[in-house]
Amino acid sequence: MSAPKKVVLAYSGGLDTSIILKWLQTEYGCEVVTFTADLGQGEELEPARKKAEMLGIKPENIYIEDLREEFVRDFVFPMFRANAVYEGLYLLGTSIARPLISKRLVEIAHETGADAIAHGATGKGNDQVRFELSAYALDPHIKVIAPWREWDLTSRTKLLEFAEAHQIPIARDKRGEAPFSVDANLLHTSSEGKVLENPAEEAPDYVLQRTTRPEDAPDTPEYVEITFERGDAVAIDGERMSPATLLTRLNELGGKHGVGILDLVENRFVGMKSRGVYETPGGTILLEAHRGIEQITLDAGAGHLKDSLMPRYAELIYNGFWFSPEREMLQAAIDKSQEHVTGTVRVKLYKGSARTVARWSDHSLYSEKHVTFEEDAGAYDQKDAAGFIRLNALRLKLIAARNARVKG
Amino acid sequence: MSAPKKVVLAYSGGLDTSIILKWLQTEYGCEVVTFTADLGQGEELEPARKKAEMLGIKPENIYIEDLREEFVRDFVFPMFRANAVYEGLYLLGTSIARPLISKRLVEIAHETGADAIAHGATGKGNDQVRFELSAYALDPHIKVIAPWREWDLTSRTKLLEFAEAHQIPIARDKRGEAPFSVDANLLHTSSEGKVLENPAEEAPDYVLQRTTRPEDAPDTPEYVEITFERGDAVAIDGERMSPATLLTRLNELGGKHGVGILDLVENRFVGMKSRGVYETPGGTILLEAHRGIEQITLDAGAGHLKDSLMPRYAELIYNGFWFSPEREMLQAAIDKSQEHVTGTVRVKLYKGSARTVARWSDHSLYSEKHVTFEEDAGAYDQKDAAGFIRLNALRLKLIAARNARVKG
Amino acid sequence: MSAPKKVVLAYSGGLDTSIILKWLQTEYGCEVVTFTADLGQGEELEPARKKAEMLGIKPENIYIEDLREEFVRDFVFPMFRANAVYEGLYLLGTSIARPLISKRLVEIAHETGADAIAHGATGKGNDQVRFELSAYALDPHIKVIAPWREWDLTSRTKLLEFAEAHQIPIARDKRGEAPFSVDANLLHTSSEGKVLENPAEEAPDYVLQRTTRPEDAPDTPEYVEITFERGDAVAIDGERMSPATLLTRLNELGGKHGVGILDLVENRFVGMKSRGVYETPGGTILLEAHRGIEQITLDAGAGHLKDSLMPRYAELIYNGFWFSPEREMLQAAIDKSQEHVTGTVRVKLYKGSARTVARWSDHSLYSEKHVTFEEDAGAYDQKDAAGFIRLNALRLKLIAARNARVKG
Amino acid sequence: MSAPKKVVLAYSGGLDTSIILKWLQTEYGCEVVTFTADLGQGEELEPARKKAEMLGIKPENIYIEDLREEFVRDFVFPMFRANAVYEGLYLLGTSIARPLISKRLVEIAHETGADAIAHGATGKGNDQVRFELSAYALDPHIKVIAPWREWDLTSRTKLLEFAEAHQIPIARDKRGEAPFSVDANLLHTSSEGKVLENPAEEAPDYVLQRTTRPEDAPDTPEYVEITFERGDAVAIDGERMSPATLLTRLNELGGKHGVGILDLVENRFVGMKSRGVYETPGGTILLEAHRGIEQITLDAGAGHLKDSLMPRYAELIYNGFWFSPEREMLQAAIDKSQEHVTGTVRVKLYKGSARTVARWSDHSLYSEKHVTFEEDAGAYDQKDAAGFIRLNALRLKLIAARNARVKG
Repeated sequence: MSAPKKVVLAYSGGLDTSIILKWLQTEYGCEVVTFTADLGQGEELEPARKKAEMLGIKPENIYIEDLREEFVRDFVFPMFRANAVYEGLYLLGTSIARPLISKRLVEIAHETGADAIAHGATGKGNDQVRFELSAYALDPHIKVIAPWREWDLTSRTKLLEFAEAHQIPIARDKRGEAPFSVDANLLHTSSEGKVLENPAEEAPDYVLQRTTRPEDAPDTPEYVEITFERGDAVAIDGERMSPATLLTRLNELGGKHGVGILDLVENRFVGMKSRGVYETPGGTILLEAHRGIEQITLDAGAGHLKDSLMPRYAELIYNGFWFSPEREMLQAAIDKSQEHVTGTVRVKLYKGSARTVARWSDHSLYSEKHVTFEEDAGAYDQKDAAGFIRLNALRLKLIAARNARVKG
Repeated sequence: MSAPKKVVLAYSGGLDTSIILKWLQTEYGCEVVTFTADLGQGEELEPARKKAEMLGIKPENIYIEDLREEFVRDFVFPMFRANAVYEGLYLLGTSIARPLISKRLVEIAHETGADAIAHGATGKGNDQVRFELSAYALDPHIKVIAPWREWDLTSRTKLLEFAEAHQIPIARDKRGEAPFSVDANLLHTSSEGKVLENPAEEAPDYVLQRTTRPEDAPDTPEYVEITFERGDAVAIDGERMSPATLLTRLNELGGKHGVGILDLVENRFVGMKSRGVYETPGGTILLEAHRGIEQITLDAGAGHLKDSLMPRYAELIYNGFWFSPEREMLQAAIDKSQEHVTGTVRVKLYKGSARTVARWSDHSLYSEKHVTFEEDAGAYDQKDAAGFIRLNALRLKLIAARNARVKG
Repeated sequence: MSAPKKVVLAYSGGLDTSIILKWLQTEYGCEVVTFTADLGQGEELEPARKKAEMLGIKPENIYIEDLREEFVRDFVFPMFRANAVYEGLYLLGTSIARPLISKRLVEIAHETGADAIAHGATGKGNDQVRFELSAYALDPHIKVIAPWREWDLTSRTKLLEFAEAHQIPIARDKRGEAPFSVDANLLHTSSEGKVLENPAEEAPDYVLQRTTRPEDAPDTPEYVEITFERGDAVAIDGERMSPATLLTRLNELGGKHGVGILDLVENRFVGMKSRGVYETPGGTILLEAHRGIEQITLDAGAGHLKDSLMPRYAELIYNGFWFSPEREMLQAAIDKSQEHVTGTVRVKLYKGSARTVARWSDHSLYSEKHVTFEEDAGAYDQKDAAGFIRLNALRLKLIAARNARVKG
Repeated sequence: MSAPKKVVLAYSGGLDTSIILKWLQTEYGCEVVTFTADLGQGEELEPARKKAEMLGIKPENIYIEDLREEFVRDFVFPMFRANAVYEGLYLLGTSIARPLISKRLVEIAHETGADAIAHGATGKGNDQVRFELSAYALDPHIKVIAPWREWDLTSRTKLLEFAEAHQIPIARDKRGEAPFSVDANLLHTSSEGKVLENPAEEAPDYVLQRTTRPEDAPDTPEYVEITFERGDAVAIDGERMSPATLLTRLNELGGKHGVGILDLVENRFVGMKSRGVYETPGGTILLEAHRGIEQITLDAGAGHLKDSLMPRYAELIYNGFWFSPEREMLQAAIDKSQEHVTGTVRVKLYKGSARTVARWSDHSLYSEKHVTFEEDAGAYDQKDAAGFIRLNALRLKLIAARNARVKG
């Protein structure tokens, strides 16, 4: 790879990406464009602008954007249509944010005439893969710089020395190392590393960033009603909201009631296991509610096919293949299934759990007339079941007869 | 089908199966053998013996058996190795009990020279299918009698008239109709019908049979440690127990803490949707713990394959195909994966939730050496990730280049 | 089911459906509408009109339609986009025709105010299922009459007696029984029954209806070039053709060269096995060519996902679930994959085989620059493979180390 | 990676691996052990011994082994139980040989105290992946040396110069470059590269190594009967044979009749497409026959599950994951299905095709009694089909009614 001339950097304004910024300038002598996005991580963005300016970035090279609505509408919601969970439990909060960041990095590269992008993910994790696969899928000629895989700043000490040598301000609390590492966006907060590295030890309570401990949550349950249209949540308690507003509201409710805490050891795409604590308060409610509305609006054929496709779909997102033909194929199938996933679900929140307790819809396939224990007025002829069972049994009978014959 | 001469009836001792007993005698003039099993439903069995005797069954034709250990060891545990859940949520508590009952019905038919079996499941539900597919798979020549599909006792009134006409004692509380229908065994209790038929209305609290309301559960969390060997739970808090003893203990713990309550609208195999409330206190803890131990002992290849096979496996059990070649094939794959699923999981129980908080194992694949944020002493070369990503990206780049070319 | 008042009958003009026509009139006293479709079975349709008139059907109740283009365009081609084969070998020639016939039966019922449809499929086969599932999916209130399951004309003799009693003309060659049963349309001809019922005996040559025996095919190979656009064949040897014209042309070529003969024992949906001889001359060429063009235009991600979905898709069509949400979901995924399946394939036909020998496309993903054994000018860095392999191996190494540890 | 001290080299005796041998000695100054295996590639092995001796390898460091029986019995046959084909067409002839070679390389390393293995696969292909994943799965500490990814002998000229400089004899016909590259073993021969690199051009006839052109094959068909026991072929025309003997015999038959030629563009695991010509004469017959015997001995449940698992299984083998937990899980499922795959198939060979024409077995599930067009003496009640269809249709009816309702 030839040296980059102009690089768009995913820039948080924090110490690490500030060091990267400076390293790119000194290592490659290249012009740096910073890109700072609000995906709902809960931090002010303007300090990042000031920091970038201070590090010598030209004003026209500083991009700061609020992507919250696009994030929820075009990434989170399509994923939730699939009820996607990775390895049975993880709601993919980090995974789903990466493709959007890469998309904007590449677009800004095109706008500014940059030939490269850079990110601050390490060489051990999934995020490098997600950033880079997305970028290459959107521009096969883009260069990607991953300083953590390249430089020799391999210890905290060296990093701080580099920062000092290049007059990068170091916040007081960054002198020592954080007891764990945090990533956050509107969908979730993840914590990993350091004090969490031993999966045999319970995570300390102070790891929680946005969720009340269930023990400290209100003693009284609270109900929330979520309305869906074609698979996407559109209203809470009857009030229509934009996607990001809606997820924000669910986060408040879930956070208050201690919903969506997950302690998980998962398999990274790069081959190792890692342990993380995830908080997905709003997303956990949303998943529960989406399942609830599908229960009455999806038939068994569509529902079971979705269930069988989901693990592959979740794996693709986890591994960074959002912009791949196979993810798009699965999305087409999933979206096709959502045409009637419209209606309202009532969820009960209490001390760490969110449970569907009621659901209704004009699009419901539930037929009380058929299922009732009472007289059904001919809706269903129980004698049909005899033939149904006998033909389903036929092959099993033939096997049993065969097995008896060849053993005999 | 020619008339049966001797029938083995799945007999609970209750009113409905007593009516069936008498109906078989009067309708077919056949000898009836009763089979009453203890699967952990929590009812005394001896009253069933007395009732059968009173209805004229010969003592040698009365079979009463405690199947709890066989149930958990040979049915529940193999199923839990798969982390089986139907339609994302249901732990298959009723489904998994039916094949065992059918197996014993057929075996008793062979022992007693009976040519038929009979069960008390209706023509609308899944249980008829499960009973009959199992029976036919074990004996292709057995006759199966399902009185609810055949007789004309189509209303409560007619049933009671029949009972009175045949001197079947009717308990006081059976005169009126129950507000919902209950099925129970060591794994779960299900409630459905009547007051539960409207899925838009929250189930009343009195539906709960064995689980404390989360609101009424202890205010203090409780921890339990479950030890697994080759995929099966073998000890609680370090104390080895038989399968049924262990599940009983987990039921006590789960029931106390309000764990495992599910309100679900599901798709029956016979084509309609139904709404049920399930309580699976011990099973819910067991599933959580099994996932927890798999997190550190299964690698991604095995784990993801299991996840992708699970929906089909669960569907087979739900639909009654326990004794089918495809369920056995899937079981062989699943069992193969469990050879190292050995270790201990710590689960926190609190107000309706059961969450893994720690897990450890001599068979662990988790490598702190690889994943650590600290110096890893060469365990992992971050530069490898560059090649890994570039080759994973190659096809995406070729697609991007192609798409640009044909659009251009 | 109450008696039908007006029935639309799938009417071939042959003896069997003429008997059904008359039986419907006499059994139910209902008005009969006949529907005769040209799906390319190679028979004149006008005799069916005369026969219907002769049996007392009013002219306005006689529907005769050429559905060949719709059949190929809306049913055959979408199916071929999936490379659908049932049980590894069967190209679904009969299965794919049934939904279209049902669709028109239901539409004609709506046009004519009929409340029922009727078909001539027996109670042992798949076609009854396909006709009826399609009909119910399109009109949940339609009645379906399947005389073969209902009447007592259970022997050839009784059928002929009924025909004579009702003055239905019997062609000479129908007095004796045919040595096997045939179904045909533009995609294939199937033969089954009678002389074919013993799968241990080779099918006699006279079974072949439209395909030259390979031994009698030309001694010189012939080449054909098929051009695809977005997954569908659009031209042969550079000449654009309508779907049905194109398939007709491929049938001529395949038939001449003995292509597409299959002797198969398959699993029917109703639980039994049956043996058939299928001739799919044009379809076999089309499948080969479609695979050929996908080889260069689909990437591995899309292709492998298609391969994994295909068996389920084929099973759905075989079992009669064309009009089901899950088939539509799979179709959406498959169609999504075909956006760039555009290009030309050269197929060699010779003595029973059709083999792709060349393929080219503006949409090709094949990159000679990458794959070449020659210098590749930096298109591909072989060192990347080292990291790729090491990270793919990491989990396998961790397993090997674990297994050594716990055994040691 | 520290420098290797003793290396086991997969050594063919040809020019390329002789250069590697010498390069290992000069580059690393390490001791070299050569391993030359007979996997049925049709070459004498003793010349490899002489060549190795001449290049200074100590006699005790020269391993020459006939692995043909192990290859067919433990690798080819298990794979054929799955009917494995990659991307719809490729019988995996190269892929399945690599794990065995790696297994012996690692075992010999352990026997000889070597710390590394080396292979002659390039950095662009799949074989490097297969060799190395297998090796790492068997010994996580083994070093693997892949000279083609490491050295600077990047052109034919440089290779020949190196050979001359180190007195490696160069056969006359190796001075010029071969027009394509060949790999062979008992299962297949593959040809790729050079004259085959343009997939739009038909492969020249001279590419064929072991198969008669169909045009030159006998004008008279030939029949062969293959007997299977539990999924594996055990006899030809009634004569029991060892696995390798049997496959050799099928290769003779297939080769004579031009069976098993495939021209394919496939997706390599490393992300690029490549074009190859494969000849798998015996394997193609074996696959056809195995499908034939499964047609009558496997039921639909087992067969369809196998079909749905196969693409993943084939992909795993293609990608080099033979020694992975997920391949072993799938193998367990597949092997479970083969318990009754016992019987005989008659295959007709003619001018490039191999077609099953008859099959019989004591383990057959085919029931003429059920399927017959004749009177079936009550084996099957056609009325059962009505209930079967109605319950299968129920969900489709509910959908149709819903869709009409919400549109109305």
